[in-house]
Amino acid sequence: MVKLTEQNREQYAESILQALNSEELQQFRQLFLELHPQDQHDFFLELEESQREKVYEYLSPEEFAEIFQELELEEQKDIIEELDQTYAQDMFGEMSTDDVADFLGEVPESKAETVLEGLEDDDAKDIRELLSYEEETAGAIMTKEFMNIPADAALRDVIELLRQEGPDAETIYYLYVVNAKQELAGVVSLRDLITSDPNKKVEEVMSTRVVSVNTGDDQEDVANLIKKYDFLAVPVVTTNNTLVGIITVDDIIDVIEEEATEDIGEFVASRGATDVNLTSFTAAKKRAPWIIMLMFFGLITAGVIGQFEETLERIVLLAVFIPLIMDSAGNTGTQSLAVMVRSLATGTFEKKGMFNTVRREFGTGLFLGLFCAITLMILIPIVYRDVMLAFIVGLSLFLTLSIATIVGAVVPVLINKLKLDPAIASGPFITTINDVLGLMIYFSIATALLQYL
Amino acid sequence: MVKLTEQNREQYAESILQALNSEELQQFRQLFLELHPQDQHDFFLELEESQREKVYEYLSPEEFAEIFQELELEEQKDIIEELDQTYAQDMFGEMSTDDVADFLGEVPESKAETVLEGLEDDDAKDIRELLSYEEETAGAIMTKEFMNIPADAALRDVIELLRQEGPDAETIYYLYVVNAKQELAGVVSLRDLITSDPNKKVEEVMSTRVVSVNTGDDQEDVANLIKKYDFLAVPVVTTNNTLVGIITVDDIIDVIEEEATEDIGEFVASRGATDVNLTSFTAAKKRAPWIIMLMFFGLITAGVIGQFEETLERIVLLAVFIPLIMDSAGNTGTQSLAVMVRSLATGTFEKKGMFNTVRREFGTGLFLGLFCAITLMILIPIVYRDVMLAFIVGLSLFLTLSIATIVGAVVPVLINKLKLDPAIASGPFITTINDVLGLMIYFSIATALLQYL
Repeated sequence: MVKLTEQNREQYAESILQALNSEELQQFRQLFLELHPQDQHDFFLELEESQREKVYEYLSPEEFAEIFQELELEEQKDIIEELDQTYAQDMFGEMSTDDVADFLGEVPESKAETVLEGLEDDDAKDIRELLSYEEETAGAIMTKEFMNIPADAALRDVIELLRQEGPDAETIYYLYVVNAKQELAGVVSLRDLITSDPNKKVEEVMSTRVVSVNTGDDQEDVANLIKKYDFLAVPVVTTNNTLVGIITVDDIIDVIEEEATEDIGEFVASRGATDVNLTSFTAAKKRAPWIIMLMFFGLITAGVIGQFEETLERIVLLAVFIPLIMDSAGNTGTQSLAVMVRSLATGTFEKKGMFNTVRREFGTGLFLGLFCAITLMILIPIVYRDVMLAFIVGLSLFLTLSIATIVGAVVPVLINKLKLDPAIASGPFITTINDVLGLMIYFSIATALLQYL
Repeated sequence: MVKLTEQNREQYAESILQALNSEELQQFRQLFLELHPQDQHDFFLELEESQREKVYEYLSPEEFAEIFQELELEEQKDIIEELDQTYAQDMFGEMSTDDVADFLGEVPESKAETVLEGLEDDDAKDIRELLSYEEETAGAIMTKEFMNIPADAALRDVIELLRQEGPDAETIYYLYVVNAKQELAGVVSLRDLITSDPNKKVEEVMSTRVVSVNTGDDQEDVANLIKKYDFLAVPVVTTNNTLVGIITVDDIIDVIEEEATEDIGEFVASRGATDVNLTSFTAAKKRAPWIIMLMFFGLITAGVIGQFEETLERIVLLAVFIPLIMDSAGNTGTQSLAVMVRSLATGTFEKKGMFNTVRREFGTGLFLGLFCAITLMILIPIVYRDVMLAFIVGLSLFLTLSIATIVGAVVPVLINKLKLDPAIASGPFITTINDVLGLMIYFSIATALLQYL
């Protein structure tokens, strides 16, 4: 029994490599094809170009398709250059249509067209359909490899059908039932199928309470639905309820990862740049717009301090607390932002309602401001021997933190109401607003109380 | 066909509510029990206490168990107070053992003990076992409701067994095969089961290449495994390969959500505080340690500026660029951090290797520094009519950003090597290091070039 533990895996990979290098075709195929496609993919990625050439020679297009569909998009683009055109075309013919569509969506249209023309008509039609949906919608992420069964079939016949066609479908754990007009009419789980009398008809055992999504639905909403009901798959229908595809739970896991990475990317202002596969220059080009935009925000903050140059000239010590005010305002605001973004993303927000959540955040800000102000009013007199300074910094911080939580909580909700992605109100954006507010409060109080300093 | 669209759902809920309020027991039960447990839960959450009391009366403990296990932990604690003790005990007897364990892990031990003593011996034993594993490990999140089948059984008999016991198991889509010593020997998917000749034996069709996890494995590693291989479930074994539980994909989705929320929480320094169910004061208490710790960091940064008070006194205008230096250093560092944390979490980091990734980040920092320095050397002379100031700020920013990316990339890797959670190197921590470095570079250069200003 080949158990894929850390140690065995390396040893096993060593044997395959040896077979490959010494050109023992049979030995290589036997060992390699025994692996899970994902492990085949891991092994393949470690190879040099000359070794990869041998793999293309030793594996049929159908076998190589398994590896190709596990590759990242950037890797696929590199590998396709190494493949013979006929081999590549045969490989596309063996891949799941949704995987082909993902790839073709990223290459120049003329190239995609060539590939499409070489495919069977049915597959080409499915892929064109998938490509026609907007990115990140249910239609774009669904698969066309699903089985639908007529409502009036006998269970016995369905099981026979599964025996024949099952291996090609993405999942056979849920079978979607359609009526004569190809409209979604119900669902039968494989579980129900085998635990029921085989002589019954599908419509007798199917559940008509089938939850479906629309082709245009956002992928994040689909993810929340699958998560909520613990589904293994969900059917995708058009506006007139025609069944056109399914989305399986493994695709949804990728969506959840992707959305979480996106959320984090937006917190740190690097949308699309948290990809470790890019070169330094490409990564810099992707991140630079954010950093430069935020630098402009920094110039705005600079302008705010510039307004108080006179005050600063009289008491230079005030400059020392600029970082403290900025950091505290920024951190408090992004905490509130994180709470809101996550509760909007995971759907808990709807349960509690906007008003309650914002009020909760404001209350939290008041308490946080109070805790921090008290700490500072004890610390600053000890370190800087200046009670008035402690009072100014403490009061500023109290006011700033109370407001910072509201900014952090309200901005993403407003942006959500305007149907924009809540995470556009990214951390740095909220932080800048709070920096400016905090420093204005701080220097205004300091200027007003200047005579007592 | 009751289709749960947004509109129908409300209308349906209205009918159930009416039946409940007018005490039409039969009508209520018929409508309510037709709903998916998750929808029953949503409906139940909207009720007043007096209405909830009626629900307890109208539903059997078994029926109510379905709702109870969907509740959040905090909600469970509130609801349990409203239940009659015998009713509650019967309900626990009907719940999945892993759900009971999750609940009992959060209540005082004496209370948990009372519940455990009232349960059947088998269930109590399972729950005690689940409670004995460390939090966030495979053992703690696995379920004991799984079916294992002997290797020498005939497929025909297995299908018969499924007909009888299937409805109680968490998943029957994978059946794990054990030998006489209860050791994990293989796996048969339901798909294989129904597409094979029923007269064959399990060991003839089972796959022996079964990937399993250990009870002590981190839940994040389990999630990555399930994600990698697109599994619907994974078996959990002890160190001597005895099968003790399974983890299903729906639990893993919760883990992925949880870990993503945790990652984000750590980016914004609010571990455990991104929970919208807390009161203001509790939320403030949870977040305050972070904010106050970061405030202390702010005092350190203040100390750095304090060192250059003389320089500042001569050129107050230097204070104006403090936010710009801080923000740019902080933002660049957290971008690098985000790349590292996500690639550590999703496992892409291992593919690329530490050295390559850090070198990539350093290169990115050089380019970013260059872009920003050029922008500033054009802008500052226009706005502040001071070329020397532009040079100082530009050069400082170039050096700071180059270093900031390294700090952002290396710190999480070091922390990971030390087997700590990489996200402890949270955004604010990295930001503070970069703030201090950036301001020291800035004021050092300014002090050195003071005579030219």
